[in-house]
Amino acid sequence: MANITKKVSWSSRGDESGAVWEGTPLLNGSERPSVSRQDPTNWRPKEIPHNEKLLSLKYESLDYDNIENQLFLEEERRMSFMGFRCLEISRWVVCGIIGIVTGLIACLIDIAVEELAGLKYKVIRDNIIQFTEAGGLSISLILWAVLNCAFVMLGAIMVACFEPIAGGSGIPQIKCYLNGVKIPRVVRLKTLVVKVFGVICSVVGGLAVGKEGPMIHSGAVVAAGVSQGRSTSLKKDFKIFEYFRRDTEKRDFVSAGAAAGVSAAFGAPVGGVLFSLEEGASFWNQMLTWRIFFASMISTFTLNFFLSIYHKKPGELSNPGLINFGRFESETMAYNLYEIPLFIAMGALGGMLGALFNILNYWLTIFRIRYVHRPCLQVMEAMLVAAVTAAVSFIMIYFSNDCQPLGPDNAEEYPLQLFCADGEYNSMATAFFNTPERSVRSLFHNPPGTYNPLTLGLFTLTYFFLACWTYGLSVSAGVFIPSLLIGAAWGRLCGILLASIASTNSIWADPGKYALIGAAAQLGGIVRMTLSLTVILVEATGNVTYGFPIMLVLMTAKIVGDYFQEGLYDIHIKLQSVPFLHWEAPATSHWLTAREVMSSPVTCLNQVEKVGTIVDVLSNMSTNHNGFPVVVQVSDNDEPAKLCGLILRSQLIVLLKHKVFVELAQSRLTQRKLQLKDFRDAYPRFPPIQSIHVSQDERECMMDLTEFMNPTPYTVPQDTSLPRVFKLFRALGLRHLVVVDDINRVVGLVTRKDLARYHLGKHGLEELHLAQT
Amino acid sequence: MANITKKVSWSSRGDESGAVWEGTPLLNGSERPSVSRQDPTNWRPKEIPHNEKLLSLKYESLDYDNIENQLFLEEERRMSFMGFRCLEISRWVVCGIIGIVTGLIACLIDIAVEELAGLKYKVIRDNIIQFTEAGGLSISLILWAVLNCAFVMLGAIMVACFEPIAGGSGIPQIKCYLNGVKIPRVVRLKTLVVKVFGVICSVVGGLAVGKEGPMIHSGAVVAAGVSQGRSTSLKKDFKIFEYFRRDTEKRDFVSAGAAAGVSAAFGAPVGGVLFSLEEGASFWNQMLTWRIFFASMISTFTLNFFLSIYHKKPGELSNPGLINFGRFESETMAYNLYEIPLFIAMGALGGMLGALFNILNYWLTIFRIRYVHRPCLQVMEAMLVAAVTAAVSFIMIYFSNDCQPLGPDNAEEYPLQLFCADGEYNSMATAFFNTPERSVRSLFHNPPGTYNPLTLGLFTLTYFFLACWTYGLSVSAGVFIPSLLIGAAWGRLCGILLASIASTNSIWADPGKYALIGAAAQLGGIVRMTLSLTVILVEATGNVTYGFPIMLVLMTAKIVGDYFQEGLYDIHIKLQSVPFLHWEAPATSHWLTAREVMSSPVTCLNQVEKVGTIVDVLSNMSTNHNGFPVVVQVSDNDEPAKLCGLILRSQLIVLLKHKVFVELAQSRLTQRKLQLKDFRDAYPRFPPIQSIHVSQDERECMMDLTEFMNPTPYTVPQDTSLPRVFKLFRALGLRHLVVVDDINRVVGLVTRKDLARYHLGKHGLEELHLAQT
Repeated sequence: MANITKKVSWSSRGDESGAVWEGTPLLNGSERPSVSRQDPTNWRPKEIPHNEKLLSLKYESLDYDNIENQLFLEEERRMSFMGFRCLEISRWVVCGIIGIVTGLIACLIDIAVEELAGLKYKVIRDNIIQFTEAGGLSISLILWAVLNCAFVMLGAIMVACFEPIAGGSGIPQIKCYLNGVKIPRVVRLKTLVVKVFGVICSVVGGLAVGKEGPMIHSGAVVAAGVSQGRSTSLKKDFKIFEYFRRDTEKRDFVSAGAAAGVSAAFGAPVGGVLFSLEEGASFWNQMLTWRIFFASMISTFTLNFFLSIYHKKPGELSNPGLINFGRFESETMAYNLYEIPLFIAMGALGGMLGALFNILNYWLTIFRIRYVHRPCLQVMEAMLVAAVTAAVSFIMIYFSNDCQPLGPDNAEEYPLQLFCADGEYNSMATAFFNTPERSVRSLFHNPPGTYNPLTLGLFTLTYFFLACWTYGLSVSAGVFIPSLLIGAAWGRLCGILLASIASTNSIWADPGKYALIGAAAQLGGIVRMTLSLTVILVEATGNVTYGFPIMLVLMTAKIVGDYFQEGLYDIHIKLQSVPFLHWEAPATSHWLTAREVMSSPVTCLNQVEKVGTIVDVLSNMSTNHNGFPVVVQVSDNDEPAKLCGLILRSQLIVLLKHKVFVELAQSRLTQRKLQLKDFRDAYPRFPPIQSIHVSQDERECMMDLTEFMNPTPYTVPQDTSLPRVFKLFRALGLRHLVVVDDINRVVGLVTRKDLARYHLGKHGLEELHLAQT
Repeated sequence: MANITKKVSWSSRGDESGAVWEGTPLLNGSERPSVSRQDPTNWRPKEIPHNEKLLSLKYESLDYDNIENQLFLEEERRMSFMGFRCLEISRWVVCGIIGIVTGLIACLIDIAVEELAGLKYKVIRDNIIQFTEAGGLSISLILWAVLNCAFVMLGAIMVACFEPIAGGSGIPQIKCYLNGVKIPRVVRLKTLVVKVFGVICSVVGGLAVGKEGPMIHSGAVVAAGVSQGRSTSLKKDFKIFEYFRRDTEKRDFVSAGAAAGVSAAFGAPVGGVLFSLEEGASFWNQMLTWRIFFASMISTFTLNFFLSIYHKKPGELSNPGLINFGRFESETMAYNLYEIPLFIAMGALGGMLGALFNILNYWLTIFRIRYVHRPCLQVMEAMLVAAVTAAVSFIMIYFSNDCQPLGPDNAEEYPLQLFCADGEYNSMATAFFNTPERSVRSLFHNPPGTYNPLTLGLFTLTYFFLACWTYGLSVSAGVFIPSLLIGAAWGRLCGILLASIASTNSIWADPGKYALIGAAAQLGGIVRMTLSLTVILVEATGNVTYGFPIMLVLMTAKIVGDYFQEGLYDIHIKLQSVPFLHWEAPATSHWLTAREVMSSPVTCLNQVEKVGTIVDVLSNMSTNHNGFPVVVQVSDNDEPAKLCGLILRSQLIVLLKHKVFVELAQSRLTQRKLQLKDFRDAYPRFPPIQSIHVSQDERECMMDLTEFMNPTPYTVPQDTSLPRVFKLFRALGLRHLVVVDDINRVVGLVTRKDLARYHLGKHGLEELHLAQT
């Protein structure tokens, strides 16, 4: 199983197909080219084989359009007004549970990391103190490295061997899921377990990672699990929430779960809602948004409640989420008009550094795809990174001579004296010898003069490369906190430099402000989110005053960064050749019409079809279609028949499994009628066609699809422009869109891949190659 | 002109049609009724005639679906990649300008109110001080009343005589506009001018109103004006932004304007974005949302910048918007778990009080619709309210003996000593003798003990009825601030009572916290917004800690309030019989299909149609259709012809005006071809058909519609369920949806009114009556 998943995750490896092709820009100037998928002259080989110009056909789509077949309509019509009200209430209940469970998971991660990291740092610190006097600090180094490696090995083994999809932050995967792409195994219980323990291991292992990104994935898995009222992995069905067992409903809950995850991670419920909407929703629905908001709020609340108990102050609910930026008091942190250009410049710098980060990580990922794809290699790489991180940290701390006096409030958790005088501590150690969250907080809030510029510069440089190397390892880990840390370091450096230039003006005095702006710039430069990130940062700092500068900075970072390279998540989505649909069709795609975009010819089924034909169609591995227009022959001649419905592979499989044949129904009159429940029970893991045995006699039977097909699929005429098709497809979350001629005969079918193929490159519209791998 | 508008605003007055009918509940139990508009037996008369069960046919729809005809596609195809980029940049520029102008208007309103109100209170205060000793305070009362009346008269005359649509807060109108209903004159320059000066007059006139609601309307008008690059009222065309002259683009900018208005009013840019999305957007688009956010940010920024200059602290940008709640410091305002049930109880109370407010206002509005519809009566009513407000305030202050010592910081702007000892001031006067914004701030932040419970109780009671009476007057005025003020008063009262019950516990000590919760509960109970209101309140208080309690309170208030009566804005929208589309089709509407919902028969046009026929169709006042399916006859027999496009009345008008006839084109070969520009120049005020002269000869000519019609209108089969039709309609912002049979022949047309008719009442699905008035 693990092997199959690996194959899928990296399904379109460049080295498998030998040479990879890049699409030529389709439209240059005013000529209209003939776009044809069959014409290979449009494609020219490119030297460096990589796979972002490919589109994998392995990924299936989710169906966010209700299948309104007769069964469904009958059920809806049977349902009373009170029934709908109960459904609505159970949606709220589910969202509440999602919030609570997500909050609890966040709590578990936080406490585990806190305790384990505390233990680890205590052991190492005692060891260092012991050896500082006596000499032999290399033993401390080895101890540190071994401890890190052990934790990371544990985490990496779990991810690499048991559930590779649990690697990374999970945000790209959730983006894809909400977009409508079915990433296999992404919302399973096993993934959640591996993710949670993996992230604890990698944070405790001292890698340059955060525990916040994975929370989003965890929340999504929780949502997908809770909303179905059963666990397929544990083979336990609670017989509740059966109505929610379809893609449309599940997607809504997954949005809520992702939002709850963000909310728990950053203490940012509104940010969570906006994140879900920015990444996922196409059709904005007020009730849904409120439910998402509810889940987010409950999640922060649960987290705060349990953390307040853990911190021995039960009932004090004013703590934010997992990461606590500390409170920025507005008095000390006011900004002035003439600082705006500075902020913008920092945003531009963040954009450039972010692009550099992404480019390096892109090369690294290509390297990994080609050479580091066996689990044991992946585990070894992770351990190597862990050891190097420990070594680099140690060396930096060892050679640093930035000693600072211990403050009376003793804000440092694990102050390392090392070679400093008594009552002083090593400032470099605050940055390295700490969980990343604590380091960020120190950079934001420690009083001016706590760090000297050299410390910050060296820290930025080393941490930048460490974080870049770390992202993409087979460990569960987020990139938010490392980005914030890098940005906070160089931001604070900027602040210190500014203060030394204009030392007379008191407003420059606080470098913490610039640390915040730098952090925003760096994070924005890497992930390229704007709206939701602004809100997340504002909520995490607990101060709305900084909304405007943070927005400016994030926008600048995005504009500058986009000039060089895409966002980190988009790079990873592209490298996996996912057919991801953006918000709008490419600007210059009015040239194209449904006729050119659609797949044709289409395999159609008759309204009453022979079982043998259906089995053959489903078994055909070369086409592997998932949706079939159902047609009805009006006249006897060879004319293409008229469209009367649409049926999905999954539905046909259920029909075959239950042997819903016309002949059997006539012979066994008492046979139970197939109900929606049968489809729901099979959802979402429909068996493959190969597992269904159909005898030779049965092949001659007929199947009546009338009751099960969707009788009113959305259709478009052939001349519909691509943007129009795109809008319809995206706004309604379609999976199949039937293209018909002027008398309603099927001429083609548009699917997600047909639309995702067209892509706006630097020189205009480009077409991606469809990879079969 | 003013009379026509009045007619439209209150177009479906119950007293005009004599008796009004109420739809019977359509679906009870499991029977399927035959729904037919022609069948009057379904309707039974109801005793009290009011008009919320009617749906006016006077309101036209906006078209949020692009008309992708040949002209449009040609233009798009001619446009280069750079062209699209420039368009994108100009969209950002427009949003920036919208933000700046909206911020300036907010600034103007704020400064004008501040100065004029300051002047007014100074005059009255001097007068009161003068007469307190000497006796004869009745003169002060008269002075106060006369000053109030004068200002209010000015405001009321402007609204009632020049632009009735500028009355009220404008939020219901903007909601309708964003929903897709064309409310006449709602985004015109004249409306803006009347609105701005009207709101200054009504706030300075001492009415129980806020200046925040009208900002949203102002922002929307600014957006509609700026984005068109011309002013039709001023007959000035700057020849820029011509691409944006259509409903789709304009709507996007209006969302941005409304958001900028919220942002300026409450210093809540994120709240503004969420408001726009909650009220308007159906298809969420990432780029659009960023632009909306940008406009919001710029707007707050501009306001703060100019206000900082006005307040003599140039460049200090950390002030929030028009209303300043003051900063809630989290140390003093922490809340504890056991306060949550209290908050929920306050939310429930707020919901009930809000429902009471809405019920009273509903009756009052019905009364006004029937008896107070002449401008002079409206002005007199407004003046009466102003005088009564002044009198009540005066009496309350006069009989109050709640004296408080003047603090050292002297937080009161206009402390009234009256009969208090020296060094003390009258506490009732802080609430009444102040602009409502300042009163809210005092209730939130004045230290414990500043108000005694009796003062607060009396104030709540009187202000509740005053505010209720005031909303709906012909003055520009918002309901946000009065609601907050009422809520803050009873919230603080609750806080004081709690503190007196449990005097030992320090956490109850601060009544300001309860004032905030009460304010949220009352406002939520009246307007029933949740998500955006939570964010607005959080941003306005500058403290995210209260997010969770505020959300809980708003949700409770909404649930409790909805049990009794709808939200205030919804009541007013319903009373004007606007065909407003909600987010989803009514839950129990799966019974209905497109066949039952659609209007039929449909007036179709041929692809090449006789001019006379077109003129006759357009002139037919009894039908007054706006969209016509274009059909092509395939065979010679009488069969209904096949659908090949859709054309709008406005397009036909332009074609007729430019005499685009087949015969003329052939005779005058050099004639300029009609371009998109001609349609854009006519937008949005297309002339009526009566103003276009078509000679008898010309009536015999033919018009070829091929180039101008939308060749790919969205269609649905007849059996499509209502929820499915609804979703398509709402997600794509359609105006007309063609219903076709299985061989693509037109059988009906679904418009906004056909969908808005079905409505979920207390007993299930209800059908509204279509009013011709």
